[in-house]
Amino acid sequence: MELMEGERIDDLEYKGIKIIQNKNYFCFGIDSILLTDFAKEIKDNARCIDLGTGNGILAILLSAKTNLSKIYGIEVQEKLAELARRNVVLNNMEQKVEIRAENIKNLLNIFPKKSFDCVITNPPYKENGTGIKNENIEKLIARHEIEASLSDFLNISYNLLKDNGTLYMVHRTERLVDILAELRKSKLEPKKIKFVFANVKEAPKLVLIKAVKNAKPFLKIEKPLYIYDENGDYTKEILKIYNKL
Amino acid sequence: MELMEGERIDDLEYKGIKIIQNKNYFCFGIDSILLTDFAKEIKDNARCIDLGTGNGILAILLSAKTNLSKIYGIEVQEKLAELARRNVVLNNMEQKVEIRAENIKNLLNIFPKKSFDCVITNPPYKENGTGIKNENIEKLIARHEIEASLSDFLNISYNLLKDNGTLYMVHRTERLVDILAELRKSKLEPKKIKFVFANVKEAPKLVLIKAVKNAKPFLKIEKPLYIYDENGDYTKEILKIYNKL
Repeated sequence: MELMEGERIDDLEYKGIKIIQNKNYFCFGIDSILLTDFAKEIKDNARCIDLGTGNGILAILLSAKTNLSKIYGIEVQEKLAELARRNVVLNNMEQKVEIRAENIKNLLNIFPKKSFDCVITNPPYKENGTGIKNENIEKLIARHEIEASLSDFLNISYNLLKDNGTLYMVHRTERLVDILAELRKSKLEPKKIKFVFANVKEAPKLVLIKAVKNAKPFLKIEKPLYIYDENGDYTKEILKIYNKL
Repeated sequence: MELMEGERIDDLEYKGIKIIQNKNYFCFGIDSILLTDFAKEIKDNARCIDLGTGNGILAILLSAKTNLSKIYGIEVQEKLAELARRNVVLNNMEQKVEIRAENIKNLLNIFPKKSFDCVITNPPYKENGTGIKNENIEKLIARHEIEASLSDFLNISYNLLKDNGTLYMVHRTERLVDILAELRKSKLEPKKIKFVFANVKEAPKLVLIKAVKNAKPFLKIEKPLYIYDENGDYTKEILKIYNKL
């Protein structure tokens, strides 16, 4: 496959999956890998949607790790959606993964309400107007709530999900109060949380969240996930997720 | 000091503090020890109140660990309040610790609004109507939200605290969504959270929370606290909290 300027192909070393990334756009990190591992429990033949798919990483990885029937990857930036489409072709996943260049706020004009079993999303982490913004517009949109806010993501998710449908999300811990309060307000009840720590000495930066539409309150905090051990090597749990154990 | 039926004296092995407990009532556990350690950062001469003090453990321990000027221990059960008063005398803390037998919902008739720097509380963990209830009435009231709900505790806390005053609370992780959503609704912004794990293999059961009245959102999740190590011994962090290191 021909690469464009700024692009490189990353081999995920997982079931032969390769992802084209462009260093000028937002590149995926360990958060996407961890989120698809967290979500791999979804039932067979699930109908899924990835809100803000970027280069397609979540949609492609979830498709590889599960027996879902279909996943739509929604990306507001046409250039990124085009990159995601090439990634789908690169991994021969055209049957299962379909990329749409849309603002998520427009999705209820495209898909019927209550038509999905699962939403997966790695939304912009930062509120609009916060943090440093000396980035190009593509990275800005991926990282900041410019095109859609957290509550937009959750309202759309609620409407797209079937009753008892599941939302899987990765986000930054400093926004946990926003996330949990907004989830409850959106009737997506948080049921499972896993914190991701770089190592035992630092506070966690990332949090993985599972919420279920219209479910009763009862939260399980899972045991924490550490990425590095005391020697700075990957932990066994991470090696297992990366399929190296 | 003379003991009554069902009572025993526990030596906390910390600055000579001793606590009379009654096995027929709710007995304090490690949660109280951890919460006062979490709250020991309070500034000198702070004016504090412990909502639901039981046998007085939180008020007495916080008074021993800090240079607070005054702490009121509020307990709805007269029999327990009487026990707490004897614990204050036993530890020679009459100058700093004052026990009042009151329902917390009545406190705004007693104390002026905005008159405290710090609220500390180990509230009933269970919602009224949930869980097993084959307990005596004293334990029921201590464990279930019978006399006052979580939102009562938070509303009273908000009214009693000065601007930027601090609430320290210990609670069960399965209620984290309730707690964070209610805190924000009560304008007590969660700023710091610490999860307490029995060991690395199990999900955390307890959570320590610091919230600040009218503060801006930004949450810090601290590194987790493990009680036992791989061999089943206390961890160094716990030994340090117990002053054994």
